[in-house]
Amino acid sequence: MKAVRVHAYHEDPTIDDIPEPKLSGPLDVIIKVGGAGVCRTDLHIINGDWSEAMGPELPYVIGHENAGWVHEIGDGVTNVAVGDTVILHPQPSCGLCLACRAGKDMQCENAFFPGLSNNDGGMAEYLRTTARACVKLNPDTNPADVAALADAGITAYHAVRKAVPQLYPGTTAVVQGAGGLGHIGIQSLAAITATRIIVVDRNPDALALAEQLGADETVLADGTHIDAVKDLTNGKGADVVFDFVAEQGAELDAWAMTAPAGYQYVIGYGGEFKAPTLDFVAGEKNVIGNIVGTYNDLAELMVLAQAGKVTLHTRQYPLGSALEAIHDLDAGRVRGRAILVP
Amino acid sequence: MKAVRVHAYHEDPTIDDIPEPKLSGPLDVIIKVGGAGVCRTDLHIINGDWSEAMGPELPYVIGHENAGWVHEIGDGVTNVAVGDTVILHPQPSCGLCLACRAGKDMQCENAFFPGLSNNDGGMAEYLRTTARACVKLNPDTNPADVAALADAGITAYHAVRKAVPQLYPGTTAVVQGAGGLGHIGIQSLAAITATRIIVVDRNPDALALAEQLGADETVLADGTHIDAVKDLTNGKGADVVFDFVAEQGAELDAWAMTAPAGYQYVIGYGGEFKAPTLDFVAGEKNVIGNIVGTYNDLAELMVLAQAGKVTLHTRQYPLGSALEAIHDLDAGRVRGRAILVP
Amino acid sequence: MKAVRVHAYHEDPTIDDIPEPKLSGPLDVIIKVGGAGVCRTDLHIINGDWSEAMGPELPYVIGHENAGWVHEIGDGVTNVAVGDTVILHPQPSCGLCLACRAGKDMQCENAFFPGLSNNDGGMAEYLRTTARACVKLNPDTNPADVAALADAGITAYHAVRKAVPQLYPGTTAVVQGAGGLGHIGIQSLAAITATRIIVVDRNPDALALAEQLGADETVLADGTHIDAVKDLTNGKGADVVFDFVAEQGAELDAWAMTAPAGYQYVIGYGGEFKAPTLDFVAGEKNVIGNIVGTYNDLAELMVLAQAGKVTLHTRQYPLGSALEAIHDLDAGRVRGRAILVP
Amino acid sequence: MKAVRVHAYHEDPTIDDIPEPKLSGPLDVIIKVGGAGVCRTDLHIINGDWSEAMGPELPYVIGHENAGWVHEIGDGVTNVAVGDTVILHPQPSCGLCLACRAGKDMQCENAFFPGLSNNDGGMAEYLRTTARACVKLNPDTNPADVAALADAGITAYHAVRKAVPQLYPGTTAVVQGAGGLGHIGIQSLAAITATRIIVVDRNPDALALAEQLGADETVLADGTHIDAVKDLTNGKGADVVFDFVAEQGAELDAWAMTAPAGYQYVIGYGGEFKAPTLDFVAGEKNVIGNIVGTYNDLAELMVLAQAGKVTLHTRQYPLGSALEAIHDLDAGRVRGRAILVP
Repeated sequence: MKAVRVHAYHEDPTIDDIPEPKLSGPLDVIIKVGGAGVCRTDLHIINGDWSEAMGPELPYVIGHENAGWVHEIGDGVTNVAVGDTVILHPQPSCGLCLACRAGKDMQCENAFFPGLSNNDGGMAEYLRTTARACVKLNPDTNPADVAALADAGITAYHAVRKAVPQLYPGTTAVVQGAGGLGHIGIQSLAAITATRIIVVDRNPDALALAEQLGADETVLADGTHIDAVKDLTNGKGADVVFDFVAEQGAELDAWAMTAPAGYQYVIGYGGEFKAPTLDFVAGEKNVIGNIVGTYNDLAELMVLAQAGKVTLHTRQYPLGSALEAIHDLDAGRVRGRAILVP
Repeated sequence: MKAVRVHAYHEDPTIDDIPEPKLSGPLDVIIKVGGAGVCRTDLHIINGDWSEAMGPELPYVIGHENAGWVHEIGDGVTNVAVGDTVILHPQPSCGLCLACRAGKDMQCENAFFPGLSNNDGGMAEYLRTTARACVKLNPDTNPADVAALADAGITAYHAVRKAVPQLYPGTTAVVQGAGGLGHIGIQSLAAITATRIIVVDRNPDALALAEQLGADETVLADGTHIDAVKDLTNGKGADVVFDFVAEQGAELDAWAMTAPAGYQYVIGYGGEFKAPTLDFVAGEKNVIGNIVGTYNDLAELMVLAQAGKVTLHTRQYPLGSALEAIHDLDAGRVRGRAILVP
Repeated sequence: MKAVRVHAYHEDPTIDDIPEPKLSGPLDVIIKVGGAGVCRTDLHIINGDWSEAMGPELPYVIGHENAGWVHEIGDGVTNVAVGDTVILHPQPSCGLCLACRAGKDMQCENAFFPGLSNNDGGMAEYLRTTARACVKLNPDTNPADVAALADAGITAYHAVRKAVPQLYPGTTAVVQGAGGLGHIGIQSLAAITATRIIVVDRNPDALALAEQLGADETVLADGTHIDAVKDLTNGKGADVVFDFVAEQGAELDAWAMTAPAGYQYVIGYGGEFKAPTLDFVAGEKNVIGNIVGTYNDLAELMVLAQAGKVTLHTRQYPLGSALEAIHDLDAGRVRGRAILVP
Repeated sequence: MKAVRVHAYHEDPTIDDIPEPKLSGPLDVIIKVGGAGVCRTDLHIINGDWSEAMGPELPYVIGHENAGWVHEIGDGVTNVAVGDTVILHPQPSCGLCLACRAGKDMQCENAFFPGLSNNDGGMAEYLRTTARACVKLNPDTNPADVAALADAGITAYHAVRKAVPQLYPGTTAVVQGAGGLGHIGIQSLAAITATRIIVVDRNPDALALAEQLGADETVLADGTHIDAVKDLTNGKGADVVFDFVAEQGAELDAWAMTAPAGYQYVIGYGGEFKAPTLDFVAGEKNVIGNIVGTYNDLAELMVLAQAGKVTLHTRQYPLGSALEAIHDLDAGRVRGRAILVP
């Protein structure tokens, strides 16, 4: 089969002809890939940024944002059958450790992350995952339409979902960064809360789109944005700031925009957060980490997606044009999400 | 192997010689039973009280409160190895449905209940369960010492654990019924909260023991007990009433002892609860159902047990004397829990 | 001033000329009434149904659902000033007991309930309340437009607000009873959750309106409604059933429509709830009491109202036509809420 | 009356003879001080560290940790009477803003902080506070015995109380810094949770005392303490780290000792926290701010104290020897807490 493989860091992947994956355990599932998202993390992988943390042996297939159809199942798989349309949680988990048993899939002690850890990913015709990663969809769903929710979507939704108790009517949420994840964050906020949504971004076009997606207020990140957010919140700041940027100083802006007793949710990464411990005490403020989401987060997000409450602009590329998609993403030419299709 | 089987309702089970259970799927685990609790529910089963709800084909092996050693594992089992000492969650779950994925094991859509549903239980030399039911113990634990925690223990602990947010210092909890489950409830309350514990029972000896286990106050259930509880609580009643009896009117006493904005936890069963809907409104009072507990509840309880914070008086009988144990229980001759041992 | 007073139970109130209320303590506030809702509870008061529980001395002024303008304040009042437009929490609380300090206003140990307890209510030109009952509104709000939210609104919203953690995407809520409270319940659910909303009522017109307000499905309560709800929920029932009726058997229907591990919220009253304790255990189901709501519930609801997310059909009557309003309500001739205006 | 006043920063306070405070509003309460704690924050005040944030006019009376007897009350005060024994929440709140109404006393929009903000504190014979600051005690309580719980105690308890949902059996908590606050933190943890408690401190004597107070493990902070904590936690770190130091690098050690999905509670202050945003993402870790506590926290802590579950070593000084107490504290000669008495 065709597969997009990284052979060496700092070099373009190549499209190779490799054997199809095979079942290796009773809970394994082989997926015929119907849509594979191209993510900024893939650019980081190609640059070697994850080589130390994840340590994959090269070459390997990238692609961690996948949907498709069940092609083959192990003899312990009972939740999906061959032919089912599915979207995949990006990190198959064991279902046996205490974290899994508490529903904290991302803290599974035995998880792996195809396309990121030392396991082949989904920029290929077929992908091996496990039963616990499969979320069944309506049979007529086009995997390419939803694939981007498998990683970008779940990540944004997870953070919003955790913040629901803090976002009752009368509160204010800031979404910093109105890109792919931010768009889903805005729509998720509008769908499951009645908080006031302020969107902050450097790009006026992104702000215009944010308004269509549910933003109540938009603020251009032009250096006056902290003051602008304070002006919109009686000088206090927002009850929750979702920081989808978290680099280049945005992580410090987020803190400055967070109200006393408020919460800064870190979702993006790249920068360094710092603050006097007195800030945490005097304001009783909090910083909350976030990574991907749970299986049930993804299932819930699919409910919102299938009800039309969360959508994402995508641009499809044939699998054979993967490099074009990667280059377009790197050059900032992709609006929404690039999706590889068979 | 020897096994205690029910052949007909309203008749004594018999001790039969039957084949050992075999692995039937990749997640199956065969346990060499080291301790099998004899529970009041077993008496109900023998009386046919569960025949309609559970519908097992007779004959079958009873026993749903088990601990032992791993004897054989399916090829998908990764959390235990042959020889491990384990206690068993009574209801193996699928790990794949939304309930399982949220940590709500008892709401699993595909669960079974060996010894209760149409599956052989643990009053035998060997038992078939699954990987998701196995909680690993210190190797030197004697299964017979902890088996009673597998059902009686988890059930009491689960209710207490759910009530923790309601039981901060200054609150009062009533434990109604200081039998096997009640004893574990009292100890669990003392271990994980600082609430004031009032124990209500008809038996003065049970109350005396309750004081040793952590009760702050004891009240004899002699018809004046509702007033006594109100006197101890400024006329209000308790913030939480754990009703381990829930029959013969105790379920109504529990409601009368529950303070405004308080919670009645139903754990026992047999009676009929009733109250004017106005009671729920005027007092903003609540009734909370409880069944067994989660896998993690059992794991947490084992932490308390291995730290000596929760103990249970047991009396051991050889497996071959199972009928004697059943008759002793039926006649009220067992203090604590009867445990069958190999 | 003019005031609607009950002189004897089972007799029409009369419109009397009585002295205006005076400040009696430093936290008192005198309100010039701008809107006073006529509630089914007023009919109950006139019938003497509350005489024992509340024990007011007759004659007294009824009316417990009020909004208006601040007319005079005690010397300890700092949150409102003369001339402010306000809606009133129906039960002024002390702010000093442990319940108040935890935000549980309805469990205040020192509260009173003007128009219900032994204190004059708001069907009058002026009303005495306290600082802790006043929620400040935009100055241009017409009190008559929002008065119905002071009791009917807060009550419905409070129940919905408590259920938010149980109503994530993919869940189902049943609203039983699509009258005044039910309408606000439906709108609140649509505003602050993405749950699927099924509305059950005996009146096809009420169901038609419910669809406009946000119902996803409607079910005619014609005797087949329990089955209909089960059919819509894979045989399970709803995760939360809000019972705004709670009499004439509806309280038992609600239980039958509640899924395993689900919650029945009792908001209406009049009937008797009953169920085997085994039901609570086997299904791990719960019954939750609800009464009015907190000050912050009312403040949050006003945010939704001022954003246009919650509205209520009202019909205004001059204060002098109070008896007409009461008779219309009693005869079922009021759609939405009757409001007395100056 | 005698009072300890700061006249100029960086200079010793003086003991002055000044007029007794008078009631200024209907909710005011005048307290005859029975015990006034001397806190490290008083040293900071004397050094001018709080002059900018709090801006008091000099001279003023310091002392923000007080208990005593009610001496005089305003005409709106209903919760205490003259002669009552009380401990004082350090920050009187308004009871009217949304934060107060949600039980978040420290976020009150209209609060003041006697002895810290521009209001005279309690190192004096009499102190003016308000009704909402008074927690009533058993009449025979000696205020000097409990005064230290009014600030040091509530602060430690508040952090522990917030962490209860994260500290179920099987979890581990680290207490970093076993001084006055840490001691109360350890005892609170032992009283209201069954978590395993690891105490980290630079002082072996403090660790020895910690063991008596409930520590399960102690670790000397000698540079190897991060590794030691990891060794005690299977390499993961603790589920919650309570950082009572939060300066001189301890705030970074705390982060390194926090497990994935864990929480660092910042209680001390002085240092600068910093971490890559990737740390928050990859580990889904959190930092939680904490300041003093709520009125109900103090009431709960008094329940624990009166049950003997939380105690604090104190050393009494006559009010006239306040400077000696301050100098002893500054020189590290006070074990536990210095308390000024009449």
